Amino acid sequence: MELNSLNDVFEEQLGDLYDAEKQLVTALPKITSAAHSDELRKALQTHLEETRGHVERLEQIFGDLGMPTPTEHCQAMAGLIQEGDQVVEATGDPVAKDAALIAAAQRVEHYEISGYGTARTLARELGHDDAASLLDKTLDEESNADTLLTKVATGGMLRSGINQEAAGKR
Amino acid sequence: MELNSLNDVFEEQLGDLYDAEKQLVTALPKITSAAHSDELRKALQTHLEETRGHVERLEQIFGDLGMPTPTEHCQAMAGLIQEGDQVVEATGDPVAKDAALIAAAQRVEHYEISGYGTARTLARELGHDDAASLLDKTLDEESNADTLLTKVATGGMLRSGINQEAAGKR
Repeated sequence: MELNSLNDVFEEQLGDLYDAEKQLVTALPKITSAAHSDELRKALQTHLEETRGHVERLEQIFGDLGMPTPTEHCQAMAGLIQEGDQVVEATGDPVAKDAALIAAAQRVEHYEISGYGTARTLARELGHDDAASLLDKTLDEESNADTLLTKVATGGMLRSGINQEAAGKR
Repeated sequence: MELNSLNDVFEEQLGDLYDAEKQLVTALPKITSAAHSDELRKALQTHLEETRGHVERLEQIFGDLGMPTPTEHCQAMAGLIQEGDQVVEATGDPVAKDAALIAAAQRVEHYEISGYGTARTLARELGHDDAASLLDKTLDEESNADTLLTKVATGGMLRSGINQEAAGKR
């Protein structure tokens, strides 16, 4: 890796996110179909559609900035997905498994929240306002997906989420 | 993996965090010594000390709950650290490299924020109030470390952070 400028760091961040999103598009269908709760499956299905849009937004940025399509591999997302796959293959109580799937999915969301937060900040710093705006849209969707998963787990104010069901309180 | 109850999910989460923190204690000194900025090096050094405390807090929880010390391997943290190591070994401008080190460190912080958020919520749900309180302390330290890294990168209100220096504005 050669980092001679903030622009190099920006392009490296975009390349990491691009591979991370593409890995996620491949991995999410298996994780989604392992969900027991309809609410969780629906949340993951919606996020798969959003994730496809995130790939397209990054490709739009590459085009707008005249950047070659990155080819780097995101090792962190590979590890995150391996952890998700372990839960998919877990045996036991389907509701407990849903709670673990949510935990794995929220780790993925936080990886992306951090990555897009950095990329958006660097885009602004470099004066790439259109790119910053697109990255901001994706950042919002990642944050919303994380918030929705918390609600599915905890049930929000009604306290009737997957965690309560797994704890035998519902 | 066998998940028969919410308690199994909780113990699995703690095991993942325990290995993640131990990997980080091993990895942080190399990442810290690669930092060019005194402010960044100091922030990472402080967080290394905190991370050692996080390992101890988890061991206290294992003892309090009569849990055997977990032996699982956190693949996601392994991937995150591999990405950090790539930046450590990068060539180029030391300030641009600092910006990339911060990006890698913030991804690590977000992994832990997500993990401790889940573990704290599950501890509360299971009535492990002392564990929840300890996990909450660590969660606060991870969040504060993330906020501090953002300040080091962006310079806060003064706009004189590492990103501005790397962009040649200072």
